[in-house]
Amino acid sequence: MSSLSEFSLIETYFTDLTSKRDDVTLGIGDDCALLQCPDDHVVAVSIDTLVEGIHFFEDVAPENLGHKSLAVGLSDLAAMGAEPAWFTLALTLPEIDNKWLKDFSQGLANLAKQYNVQLVGGDTTKGPLTISIQVHGFVKLEQALRRDGAQVGDLIYVSGSLGDAGAALQLKLETWNDEHLSSQDQQSLFQRLEKPTPRVELGQKLLEFASSAIDISDGLSSDLGHILNKSGVGAAIDLTKLPLSPTLQKIDSKQAQDFALNSGDDYELCFTIPADKQVAFESTVTEACTQIGVIEAKSGLRMIGVDGQQQTLTGSGYDHFSTED
Amino acid sequence: MSSLSEFSLIETYFTDLTSKRDDVTLGIGDDCALLQCPDDHVVAVSIDTLVEGIHFFEDVAPENLGHKSLAVGLSDLAAMGAEPAWFTLALTLPEIDNKWLKDFSQGLANLAKQYNVQLVGGDTTKGPLTISIQVHGFVKLEQALRRDGAQVGDLIYVSGSLGDAGAALQLKLETWNDEHLSSQDQQSLFQRLEKPTPRVELGQKLLEFASSAIDISDGLSSDLGHILNKSGVGAAIDLTKLPLSPTLQKIDSKQAQDFALNSGDDYELCFTIPADKQVAFESTVTEACTQIGVIEAKSGLRMIGVDGQQQTLTGSGYDHFSTED
Repeated sequence: MSSLSEFSLIETYFTDLTSKRDDVTLGIGDDCALLQCPDDHVVAVSIDTLVEGIHFFEDVAPENLGHKSLAVGLSDLAAMGAEPAWFTLALTLPEIDNKWLKDFSQGLANLAKQYNVQLVGGDTTKGPLTISIQVHGFVKLEQALRRDGAQVGDLIYVSGSLGDAGAALQLKLETWNDEHLSSQDQQSLFQRLEKPTPRVELGQKLLEFASSAIDISDGLSSDLGHILNKSGVGAAIDLTKLPLSPTLQKIDSKQAQDFALNSGDDYELCFTIPADKQVAFESTVTEACTQIGVIEAKSGLRMIGVDGQQQTLTGSGYDHFSTED
Repeated sequence: MSSLSEFSLIETYFTDLTSKRDDVTLGIGDDCALLQCPDDHVVAVSIDTLVEGIHFFEDVAPENLGHKSLAVGLSDLAAMGAEPAWFTLALTLPEIDNKWLKDFSQGLANLAKQYNVQLVGGDTTKGPLTISIQVHGFVKLEQALRRDGAQVGDLIYVSGSLGDAGAALQLKLETWNDEHLSSQDQQSLFQRLEKPTPRVELGQKLLEFASSAIDISDGLSSDLGHILNKSGVGAAIDLTKLPLSPTLQKIDSKQAQDFALNSGDDYELCFTIPADKQVAFESTVTEACTQIGVIEAKSGLRMIGVDGQQQTLTGSGYDHFSTED
């Protein structure tokens, strides 16, 4: 059976592009990479796959795709508070397109250098365009930000602004538009969808303060739902507090709220801060973060809207709405 | 964009199937797994992708596919002499087929339990059937079996027997057959192709003896070529010594030799032993291993056939034959 490995694509396009780290004792080019873990830390690992037509459009710029493929993994490390170190790349390609490979690897490399992560292994195969990246980082075990640490009374925060990526997706699919958006506004939304910023520095700062964290990849309601399920608690959030970008503040506010609550791909962090740490947290952390609610004992996610009406999400996946009486 | 992740396929089908290890401090179900590395060891990692139609046939039994998906990674760990510990699974599926998932995960789990490896993370997405597995193991840095350690005068060995998987592939493609093969013979060849045995125990035993090692995934000539390139040496091998299974001994000997030399997917180990360690190696290691040649200073791979004729493979990839005068 044929494979692309004979072309040594990984060695040709990727070996020298990313950071060089002292803890990589053997990198690309043997049966395995050999990696040195620091004492007193555990290794945090996460693997994510992007498939053409499912996670990205066929016409996406390969440089942006390279960026995003690594960004989604770095976002998982951020959500644990881990310091990024290494990644591996399993790349399945329909054909060898030198221009595409050059641009894709450049996008990947630019982000890798920014966070001092080194590509330590990979596999290239022939087939439908599919990108799997595993990231590896370090965190002290007792500090790691898990999903199961939220306590009743903790304050719920999100970083940055929500909903831009979801709005961009609908724009791209032509299932939604808004007359108030200029062409520049649309571009800024597309930028959020295609080149998300992993909140790596914020995640590490949260180690001192947060009781739980998750990154928002599927949507706030769904991802906060994971924290609630794993922690065995419920929550109330104020929909009017969901942080919106200047662009999303131009559109219909109900629609913007829906994007912010239910659409994914923003890669912001959602986390909980014990009330007695709020002052220290807010005075220490300079990244934009917004308190949107509070952890409660009663299960389910209660959401208070602009009109004071309350909706409740329940169920293991927070997949469906149910209006509470 | 849709994804299968909402179905939590990894949690449903895979979480409890594999080994439970004390060094997995947080497993499946958070943004990252948290893993404890032993002191005085490095972590060996390798990622491999199998794509339907490229690496396996559409009609392969899912249990065998599960086995092979993990076996190719364990074989990479074996080639470094590493002790297997953990793996992650990125699984792209065209649809959710419960029977297929049950059988695939069972094949994967049976092999995982045999080697005490735990699944620590994964991602399931919708798309053309593609399986990426990253394996992680432990090895002492100074002992690890690399490709670049072969020295002039070292003896070249291979484990087990070669060529069965390549013969099976040709049988399956109907590009070759041999009248001497019974239906049972054919089944034994298919078994080698579909359920390869990673030489994990052998790899760890070789830590004491071998100067270099690689697993035979692309074919002996190509994979030994990697050792020669990385080590800056050449080699001479005796084609009449290539170990053949009882089944392959039934077919035309030239054809069998060609399978053993040039076809991949056997997942045996090829390694070099310094001459002064040969006696200790052969008296200690009980696994079937065959000396097939010797490392020489002159670059290129010289092969002596049954008729005493010599052929030489040269070039970086050992991709093409060239007959030496």
